[in-house]
Amino acid sequence: MAYELYYWPTIQGRGEFVRLALEAAGADYVDVSRQDDGKAMMRLMKDAATPPFAPPFVRLGDRTVGQVAAILAWLGPQLGLSPNGDSDRAWLNQIQLTLADLVAEAHDTHHPVDLMAYYDDQKPEAARRAEGFRKDRIAKFLGWAEQVLDRNPQGSDWMVGDRLTYADLSLFQVVEGLTYAFPKASTRVLKTTPHVVAVRDRVAALPRLAAYLASPRRIPFNEDGIFRRYPELDG
Amino acid sequence: MAYELYYWPTIQGRGEFVRLALEAAGADYVDVSRQDDGKAMMRLMKDAATPPFAPPFVRLGDRTVGQVAAILAWLGPQLGLSPNGDSDRAWLNQIQLTLADLVAEAHDTHHPVDLMAYYDDQKPEAARRAEGFRKDRIAKFLGWAEQVLDRNPQGSDWMVGDRLTYADLSLFQVVEGLTYAFPKASTRVLKTTPHVVAVRDRVAALPRLAAYLASPRRIPFNEDGIFRRYPELDG
Repeated sequence: MAYELYYWPTIQGRGEFVRLALEAAGADYVDVSRQDDGKAMMRLMKDAATPPFAPPFVRLGDRTVGQVAAILAWLGPQLGLSPNGDSDRAWLNQIQLTLADLVAEAHDTHHPVDLMAYYDDQKPEAARRAEGFRKDRIAKFLGWAEQVLDRNPQGSDWMVGDRLTYADLSLFQVVEGLTYAFPKASTRVLKTTPHVVAVRDRVAALPRLAAYLASPRRIPFNEDGIFRRYPELDG
Repeated sequence: MAYELYYWPTIQGRGEFVRLALEAAGADYVDVSRQDDGKAMMRLMKDAATPPFAPPFVRLGDRTVGQVAAILAWLGPQLGLSPNGDSDRAWLNQIQLTLADLVAEAHDTHHPVDLMAYYDDQKPEAARRAEGFRKDRIAKFLGWAEQVLDRNPQGSDWMVGDRLTYADLSLFQVVEGLTYAFPKASTRVLKTTPHVVAVRDRVAALPRLAAYLASPRRIPFNEDGIFRRYPELDG
C-alpha cells in the first residue's frame, strides 16, 4: 500500500520535511496534490474523521495523520528513520520540534503581523522582525544544532545515534532554506557550525536524496513558500 | 524516582501543559525552579548531553526531554494519559501540536516583530496582529477542536477515545488562557463550541485537577506569560 502525501502542490513548505523522509527511505508514495491540483486534499481537510487543521498530512489506509512532527514520529519507525527505544525517539522528536520552531520563525520574517495579507502589505514590520532573526535567531538555532552534533556520544556524523534519522533530513532542509532566503546572514553563521555543514553535505550526497534533488519532484524554492528570498530582509 | 520539571518559576507559560499532566496523573514530581529560582535549570540548559533549546524540560534519571509535545508524547504512556496503539498516539500528538500552534499565535499577538523587546516597544504592531487573531484565528482553532470532539467515534466527552488524555488537559489550558487574555473575543467564540466548553468544565472538575487549581502550585495568569490580558488587544 502506497503512502499518500497531501500538501500544496507548488511549494516545498512544510510538506518538504515529509517528502524528504519518504524519498530518503525509497518509500512507495503518491504526491497527491501534484496530480489533482489539491482537490482531494481540500475534500479530506473537510471530511476526514481525524481532521487536519492544515496541510501537510499523510494517509495510509484509513488513517490520516497531520502536523509534520507527528507525521515523522509516526512514519520514522516504519521508514527506518528513527532509533529504537522510547527515550531516543523522544530526543529525536525534541530535535524535530526545535527545527520546526526555526521554520515558524523563518515564516514570520515575511508575515509578522497579518497571516492573511501579502508580504507587500507588511514590509516595514517584516524588516524589523527579520533583523532579530538575522542577528540572533539563526545563530542561536544553528549553534544549538552544532552543540547537539558535538555532544552526540556516538559521533558527530548524525544528529541522533550513529545513523541517518529524519532529524538529519530536516536539518538539511532548514540549512538549504536559510541559505536560499538569507544567503548573507546564513553564510556568516554556517562558518561557525562545521558539523551542521557536514550533515547538510552528507545528506545531499545520499544516493536516493541526490537523485531526488536532481529530479522534477523537488520543487524549487520560491516566494510563495516559507523560505523566501527578499534581499531587503537579508544583510 | 520523581520526575523533575524545569521551567521559569513565575509564569504558567508552556510549562503548564506539562504540569497539568503530572498533576492530573497524581505523579511524583518536583517543580525544580520554584525551589531554586531557576539555578539548576540554567545549568542543565548549558550542560545537558541532550541540550534543550528552551524550557520546559523534564528529567527522569539520566534522561532530559524538552519541547512540550515531545515531553507529553514521552510521558503520556507512563502517566496513563495516552491511548494504546501507534496510530491513536499519532492522532493525539497531532492534536497537541495543533494546540501548540494556537499557543504560539497567542504569544505572537504581544510579540509580533521583536522577540527580545517589550510589548510596550511594539504596541501598534501587536494591535494589528491581535486583530486577525481575534477575528479569525481563535474561531478557526476552537472550531477545529469542536469538530474533533464532534467526530470522535467514541463520543464527544474527550478528544481521543473514551477517556482523558493529555489533549483534554491542553484544550482546558488554552481555553482558560484565551478566556483570560481575550475575554470578549473568546466568550463570543465559545458560545459556538459547546463540546469544547464541556471538556474545559469536565477537566476542571477532575478531583486532582480541582485540588491543583485551588492550590498555590497553580501560578495565576500574569502579563509575563504567554496569555496576557492587554484590554487594548481584545474587543
